[in-house]
Amino acid sequence: MAQGIIRLQAKICAWATAVGKKESEGPLGSCFDLKDPTDQFGQKTWEAAESEMQRRTLALAIQRRELKAEEIDFLFAGDLLNQCVASAYGLLEYPIPYCGIYGACSTSAEGLLLAGIAVSGGMANWASVVTSSHNSAAERQYRTPLEYGAQRSPTAQWTVTGAGAFLVGKEREEGVSISRGMVGIPRDSGVKDTANMGGAMAIAAADTLKRFFDASGASPADYDRIISGDLGYEGGSILCDLMKSEGIDIQEQYSDCGQLIFDRERQDVHSGGSGCGCAAVTLGGYLLPRLWDGIEKKILFLPTGALMSPDSIKQGRTIPAVAHLVELESRTPRENE
Amino acid sequence: MAQGIIRLQAKICAWATAVGKKESEGPLGSCFDLKDPTDQFGQKTWEAAESEMQRRTLALAIQRRELKAEEIDFLFAGDLLNQCVASAYGLLEYPIPYCGIYGACSTSAEGLLLAGIAVSGGMANWASVVTSSHNSAAERQYRTPLEYGAQRSPTAQWTVTGAGAFLVGKEREEGVSISRGMVGIPRDSGVKDTANMGGAMAIAAADTLKRFFDASGASPADYDRIISGDLGYEGGSILCDLMKSEGIDIQEQYSDCGQLIFDRERQDVHSGGSGCGCAAVTLGGYLLPRLWDGIEKKILFLPTGALMSPDSIKQGRTIPAVAHLVELESRTPRENE
Repeated sequence: MAQGIIRLQAKICAWATAVGKKESEGPLGSCFDLKDPTDQFGQKTWEAAESEMQRRTLALAIQRRELKAEEIDFLFAGDLLNQCVASAYGLLEYPIPYCGIYGACSTSAEGLLLAGIAVSGGMANWASVVTSSHNSAAERQYRTPLEYGAQRSPTAQWTVTGAGAFLVGKEREEGVSISRGMVGIPRDSGVKDTANMGGAMAIAAADTLKRFFDASGASPADYDRIISGDLGYEGGSILCDLMKSEGIDIQEQYSDCGQLIFDRERQDVHSGGSGCGCAAVTLGGYLLPRLWDGIEKKILFLPTGALMSPDSIKQGRTIPAVAHLVELESRTPRENE
Repeated sequence: MAQGIIRLQAKICAWATAVGKKESEGPLGSCFDLKDPTDQFGQKTWEAAESEMQRRTLALAIQRRELKAEEIDFLFAGDLLNQCVASAYGLLEYPIPYCGIYGACSTSAEGLLLAGIAVSGGMANWASVVTSSHNSAAERQYRTPLEYGAQRSPTAQWTVTGAGAFLVGKEREEGVSISRGMVGIPRDSGVKDTANMGGAMAIAAADTLKRFFDASGASPADYDRIISGDLGYEGGSILCDLMKSEGIDIQEQYSDCGQLIFDRERQDVHSGGSGCGCAAVTLGGYLLPRLWDGIEKKILFLPTGALMSPDSIKQGRTIPAVAHLVELESRTPRENE
């Protein structure tokens, strides 16, 4: 049961990623499918560009699996824009039953869990998951328009311009297994500093990870990698400390999508990458291909989301956060073992 | 499969509603559980008041079913505020795995479908659904602060101040059956007038309803009531016309939560009620008790959501909309038949 572990029988069978200029110049640059050095993807606004990334990645994922959109039973999608409009407009051309989701930067994991539940429960043959973020759209909505040239604090993270689309199918399909999952319980960090999202979200990541290890009896050594979504350097270090204080040392297996996607020295992103797109494109561009090829056999994918709004912060509220966990296993576990 | 009909084995076993002053003075006023003539629910801001309505309704629903929060496996929640903060803050005290959803005013139906899927698929014993809207919070976010006294156009609707919480359990529990469902496919209305949301959403309602009748072979006469969420007078009349043009006459069974909740003459709401809370409190306050008591045996509940944002409208986009359908059956169908 979901208070504990959700057992799933589903596979991620196809995916696609799109990124902007900065992401394409980072350490994972060669891993991504679609890139636009203008960040505009042929659109007039940053918001429309974000939508266009969603549209194109889903088209590519569907094409790769040689499906028709009509064969897909669910579309779980969401993003950071007010009222999740990147998804609403970006996916409007697809004739697929649509469930909007909001998990902030944890959206990719929330979508994969819901897709896994729909497929495992027999309500879908195919379910799709799409999410995105766009640096220029996020900055002007959450902070200030880029033109203001506001100075960033050391704990600030850089919202990734990117989108990822994933097709989840039944266990009999070829793909990377979604074998287990755990839906996060929101935690109040007490943090009010929106320039320290990693710090605000670490407590939620620790909570979900601890609950998962307690309920499963698994230990960090059972995994090739435990990877958070966008805790960045600040939050990632807090997560490792929090887990250690619980007697669980994850240091050896731990990494973070927000740390992997940018070069800390060369790209000046302060505490790392963030945004719904950060975990999504790192999963699609880097982690899933490694699982597909058997380079890694079993990972815990743990995206986190900060659930505040600019208005709630102005009203003096703290930042609540949530972290959803997805256990992913190589498509060919038997051969590799 | 979801492109068609989703068959569910789940029941709505408990629920609770909260409303503000205007709703408590309307035709359904006596049906609601919690009322506050100040619309503030003891809070300092309208946004916090909306959160508090969510918190209290879920507490009451859990208490009515004599459950503990820890026994609930999922919490599906969402609202109209940017980043869905009414839900994020309102439900933070509950130790329940949390999936944020965004379906605008269709959120109650999206939540019930996902809860039904989780329960029917064996991933949950209990799943909860909470949603809300608050007139004063919605007005200042979507349009102008109330203090401006802006004039409203004839097709404008009145955002309901209200929240509804629902507990969905297994088929063996006593409750109102969620027997089938259909997830909506978003449709572009072509409408750009945010003071005519009913007009923008009617096409999505017609699409889902037509798909459901086509796939199920059912006809309007099979239902005591076909009830949309908040199409209001303008959108409701368009829906009936659209269905008639498809050869399906729903006039006799049709009503709309946004038409039922306010007195059109006495309460000056122009085209009726709207908001996530509109369908949720009408379902919880009025429809579910009637289904529980067998006054009505079978209804189609069809909330609609407009998926634009104030920013997307300023950027010249049209209003996309979605409508999710939930088939509800009396808790005691055999005795009544």
